[in-house]
Amino acid sequence: MEQEPCNYAEATSHKEEELADDEERDPESNSLHQPLLKRNRTLSSSPLAMVGAKVSHIESLDYEYLVGFIFFTGVNFLLTMVATVLCVCFAPTAAGPGIPEIKAYLNGVDTPNMFGATTLFVKIIGSIGAVSAGLDLGKEGPLVHIGSCIASLLGQGGPENHRVKWRWLRYFNNDRDLRDLITCGASSGVCAAFRAPVGGVLFALEEVATWWRSALLWRTFFSTAVVVVVLRAFMEYCKSGNCGLFGRGGLIMFDVSDVSVSYHAVDIIPVAVIGVIGGVLGSLYNYLLHKVLRLYNLINEKGKIHKLILSLIVSLFTSACLYGLPFLASCMPCDPSLSDSVCPTSGRMGNFKQFNCPKGYYNDLATLLLTTNDDAVRNIFSTRTPMEFHTFSLIIFFGLYCILGLFTFGIAVPSGLFLPIILMGSAYGRMLGIEMGPYTNIDQGLYAVLGAASLMAGSMRMTVSLCVIFLELTNNLLLLPITMLCLLIAKTVGDCFNPSIYEIILDLKGLPFLDANPEPWMRNITVGELVDVKPAVVTLRGVEKVSRIVDVLHNTPHNGFPVVDDGSIPHVGLPDGATELLGLLLRAHLVLVLKKKWFLKDRRRTEEWEVREKFAWVDMAERWGKMEEVAVTNEEMEMYVDLHPLINTTPYTVVESMSVAKAMVLFRQVGLRHMLILPKYQAAGVSPVVGILTRQDLRAHNILSAFPHLEKSKGSKKRH
Amino acid sequence: MEQEPCNYAEATSHKEEELADDEERDPESNSLHQPLLKRNRTLSSSPLAMVGAKVSHIESLDYEYLVGFIFFTGVNFLLTMVATVLCVCFAPTAAGPGIPEIKAYLNGVDTPNMFGATTLFVKIIGSIGAVSAGLDLGKEGPLVHIGSCIASLLGQGGPENHRVKWRWLRYFNNDRDLRDLITCGASSGVCAAFRAPVGGVLFALEEVATWWRSALLWRTFFSTAVVVVVLRAFMEYCKSGNCGLFGRGGLIMFDVSDVSVSYHAVDIIPVAVIGVIGGVLGSLYNYLLHKVLRLYNLINEKGKIHKLILSLIVSLFTSACLYGLPFLASCMPCDPSLSDSVCPTSGRMGNFKQFNCPKGYYNDLATLLLTTNDDAVRNIFSTRTPMEFHTFSLIIFFGLYCILGLFTFGIAVPSGLFLPIILMGSAYGRMLGIEMGPYTNIDQGLYAVLGAASLMAGSMRMTVSLCVIFLELTNNLLLLPITMLCLLIAKTVGDCFNPSIYEIILDLKGLPFLDANPEPWMRNITVGELVDVKPAVVTLRGVEKVSRIVDVLHNTPHNGFPVVDDGSIPHVGLPDGATELLGLLLRAHLVLVLKKKWFLKDRRRTEEWEVREKFAWVDMAERWGKMEEVAVTNEEMEMYVDLHPLINTTPYTVVESMSVAKAMVLFRQVGLRHMLILPKYQAAGVSPVVGILTRQDLRAHNILSAFPHLEKSKGSKKRH
Repeated sequence: MEQEPCNYAEATSHKEEELADDEERDPESNSLHQPLLKRNRTLSSSPLAMVGAKVSHIESLDYEYLVGFIFFTGVNFLLTMVATVLCVCFAPTAAGPGIPEIKAYLNGVDTPNMFGATTLFVKIIGSIGAVSAGLDLGKEGPLVHIGSCIASLLGQGGPENHRVKWRWLRYFNNDRDLRDLITCGASSGVCAAFRAPVGGVLFALEEVATWWRSALLWRTFFSTAVVVVVLRAFMEYCKSGNCGLFGRGGLIMFDVSDVSVSYHAVDIIPVAVIGVIGGVLGSLYNYLLHKVLRLYNLINEKGKIHKLILSLIVSLFTSACLYGLPFLASCMPCDPSLSDSVCPTSGRMGNFKQFNCPKGYYNDLATLLLTTNDDAVRNIFSTRTPMEFHTFSLIIFFGLYCILGLFTFGIAVPSGLFLPIILMGSAYGRMLGIEMGPYTNIDQGLYAVLGAASLMAGSMRMTVSLCVIFLELTNNLLLLPITMLCLLIAKTVGDCFNPSIYEIILDLKGLPFLDANPEPWMRNITVGELVDVKPAVVTLRGVEKVSRIVDVLHNTPHNGFPVVDDGSIPHVGLPDGATELLGLLLRAHLVLVLKKKWFLKDRRRTEEWEVREKFAWVDMAERWGKMEEVAVTNEEMEMYVDLHPLINTTPYTVVESMSVAKAMVLFRQVGLRHMLILPKYQAAGVSPVVGILTRQDLRAHNILSAFPHLEKSKGSKKRH
Repeated sequence: MEQEPCNYAEATSHKEEELADDEERDPESNSLHQPLLKRNRTLSSSPLAMVGAKVSHIESLDYEYLVGFIFFTGVNFLLTMVATVLCVCFAPTAAGPGIPEIKAYLNGVDTPNMFGATTLFVKIIGSIGAVSAGLDLGKEGPLVHIGSCIASLLGQGGPENHRVKWRWLRYFNNDRDLRDLITCGASSGVCAAFRAPVGGVLFALEEVATWWRSALLWRTFFSTAVVVVVLRAFMEYCKSGNCGLFGRGGLIMFDVSDVSVSYHAVDIIPVAVIGVIGGVLGSLYNYLLHKVLRLYNLINEKGKIHKLILSLIVSLFTSACLYGLPFLASCMPCDPSLSDSVCPTSGRMGNFKQFNCPKGYYNDLATLLLTTNDDAVRNIFSTRTPMEFHTFSLIIFFGLYCILGLFTFGIAVPSGLFLPIILMGSAYGRMLGIEMGPYTNIDQGLYAVLGAASLMAGSMRMTVSLCVIFLELTNNLLLLPITMLCLLIAKTVGDCFNPSIYEIILDLKGLPFLDANPEPWMRNITVGELVDVKPAVVTLRGVEKVSRIVDVLHNTPHNGFPVVDDGSIPHVGLPDGATELLGLLLRAHLVLVLKKKWFLKDRRRTEEWEVREKFAWVDMAERWGKMEEVAVTNEEMEMYVDLHPLINTTPYTVVESMSVAKAMVLFRQVGLRHMLILPKYQAAGVSPVVGILTRQDLRAHNILSAFPHLEKSKGSKKRH
């Protein structure tokens, strides 16, 4: 204990250096905001408090606080408005984090307009607006979405209407490579957000991707390596202070490596407590957020103007709380061992905000609220400052961010979940740290880190990726064992109550996500029973009449059709009563046939040279042909089409006696869109295919509505 | 540059503390070896050099060097002998690292006696012997194997003959859970070896496991968390110095966090050079090791005594080199700024070994050679010691470890590949660091780290896991971007030449490993063609005669049989000419039927109550029944068996027109052992199954021998 003051002094001297750095940068940030100052010349000598990238005037006169409040709220209001208007009018898909949709896309569910150029643009501008507006949301989710958008645009050669037609881009124009690219984009986004390259790879692996190959592992690793090298280069360039706040904190965002972590067996108890609290609060947060989002959905459905009003109300409420609540906190005297340049902080970034306090005192709540979200995390994680925050201030902070975290997420601006949860979690972690103070060796700042980690695990249910992200955020390797414990406890506790937040959002959005594990009751029905309750499968013949194709395309919504020949057609050469499964044909290819008018006058197979002449693989790669663009004359209706060259002759199949559970494993593991069901009997005249299954057919919800008697056994779902 | 001496002094004072710690421990380690000293009382006052955990006498008299040499070599010889004899006589599977076999097991290939109690015991003792004998091998591979052995034994309730029969153990007695357990064991092994919990998880994911589920991710994470917490607890307990060398260095083995990493754009060049060298040397090492292992295989096949002699020769050669080569190095004067207690080091661990030098001088090669492998790595990674090692000494070190690394790995002792490669790589890294000295800001110690990482990536071709392992080994987060670059370059360069070292070993051992990606030429043949060149499939009927079952089991080596019924048997109730696929029956279950004598007097289906009475799932879980234990009387031969209750009614199937490539994707993704081939035609009298494919059938090698014309297109294999 005698060494304490000495350590403290060391820490301060360390801080002083940092702050000196800030001060160097200060004149510039002031000059940036010169116009604001000039409006109010009498105040030009007053101290300035930086609020985000905005500047407010604070003096001991009530009138001036009011002016400050109006400036603060007004700027936030305008920024929120810009973000919301962009989102509402130009790209509704840019609202929210985008991670659930990316997750669904990688699972095989395409959300329209998710990866377009407009979405990208709105997401970037909107995210800047929303974050600068001081709203309780992070830039992490949007960055993941931005990364995926860029990856998708690069892979497709540009936006929808102005595509570059380079030949090599065709190589990416298949589902698997596009998926890989988007996974790389997502991991790059996390890497850029947290400066955590390995964490980014693991996030993409654990949370986002459905299929994983070892090649994908090192591809994502490569992309995050490039991100981190570029980031490092920019920071090097910005060291001289010519990029404003960019690069502040270096590659490690919330460094807590300056405390040596020493803990004993008894310290496991508070860690476990934090974990349990994190699990309970996390699942509670998921539950409440679900309710709020459903409410918001009702409001948002009413129209664009309602969305805008909702956002603006949240913005006003946020600004009022951020500005008003610090007045509730009492001023605290600065530690006498700290020099004047450290405490109180005024007019620049720092740990001890002066706000409404006299010289030599600081307002601890202002330190947490009147700053950017990133700096708030940095301040609450600050180590070796055991007396910095009052419990009372932390309670207000925690309560405020619980409310904001619930009500901000659903508004129509690009928003991430990471930072709000980190802010909430760190508050109760630090509170517990203050309470445990006399009994523990672990620094309060580390308690805050553990709190943040536990709430993340309790809400998002990730383990390895969170662990690595926190390691890369805080640069304290010795904290790793207790972080791991904390994460695992929180995840386990959370899993007892409800699914992860992303699963809840996926469910709310109604995206047909295919789960990793089949439900146990799926073992009790066979795929044969499943196709029996569906409308009979529509099959085509190897050489089919144009009129029938048009008919089928108009009257069925299916995207895939089995092609079957039988002995009744002379040219096929099958014995009487025998049938042959030729394969599966996609709707897109049928439309292509009609568009390109590859018709034959009579019912015959095309020769090989004809095929080679007609079909180019460039045509086959073209997707999303629309039926409306097709015009077929009456004369053509009577002609024939040889479908053989277009058939996928090797579709994946299962026998009708296969259980739905096993079929689903195949469906998901191999990544299918259609699966043919074959009969288990061999006999004359039997169709070689009894049905076709799609993703929609295999969704638990849809099966249950067809087989209500299974409902009762549903309760016993085993969570993985 | 003017600040340099100041930093240096800081570093030393830091080192001093560490060394003071060592000295406290010293008296004990001396007392441990007291008997050795007593043999030679005249020397009791002589300085001692610690070599591994052994003590040798070194004085300036030639005679005494000889005695030291004899002691050193003798002890090493004995330890090697113990390790080899154990391996050769009791558990040949304990030799080598064991990682390729674990990888194969998780891919579905079982190596006999791999996870037994004897293997575990031999691996533990043998590994201790081999590592203490100063051989150029690591404990990392063996620890992975030990972890897997323990996991397997726990999952099965104990060793083969003395199994605990707890009911809950039955839950693990299926292939998937056993695989999961073994994956957890492997990751725990890596975690224990490197004290790298996240690295362990990623190693298991990237290198060892074939199938990966999100549940497995957090299970392995949980097991490594437990490992690291237990490790931490032991270290806490051992802080007082009552466990010898255990826990030395704390949770971070090769800490290089004391240098601040600052680099510029130009520093990318040496990093890229290290990466390229790592890739080239790594693939060269793989190539040469392949040759040496083939040579060793020839020697080892000659008998146990040859194996023993080979090991002992390697041990003698190693000891001679380790002891003799330091005499080639010239003595270097200690830096005057270092205190006497730091340089030279004598009688304890440290960075500046005195060996044959006068007081105030140290022998840099002895620093690297006359120590444990772990300490050698620690010394060569040492930062802020730019003048410590001569290039000449490093060249000798590098050359020696190249030779030892090639010739030690294949001998019949438990051996790991990690540490030898780290030693080799760090040598050339440090050499490059010395050469680059004037042009770069990066510390020589960090160059050594990068060299080690690059050679690992060049030989083992891992990326993410290596990156995290090195992060957790060295605790320098700022090094991460350049480590990532270096690893990626090395892996890419290496992949141009040959496959990874583990794949080479798998291939040498002839394990039928199923690759992740099918070869491109596999698209050109169908599974129908593949089964056509095989012997016709043997099918059984739903109710089968005992004599036929015995006949089939005796005359075919298959492990699975399709069960097919047709209309010719009256009780089945199929129309004439129709056939029905009932499912797949495993050989083990057929043997079980014969052993339990579930025979029927006449050809009929068993009633449901009979089934419930007779079959217990406990019996079904019993595996590896042997045909030799079955005795069937002539009378019983004429009886019948109803196979229906034993059939797997939902086997995975493909249509005969499926390409081998796609069938292989299904086979591997879903993790199959048997796949049934169905006909694409439906007609009367056609068998509903045309063949059965196993893992062996799908191996590229076997397909090529059946279809020689595919050989020519083989060259175009796309490496992933």
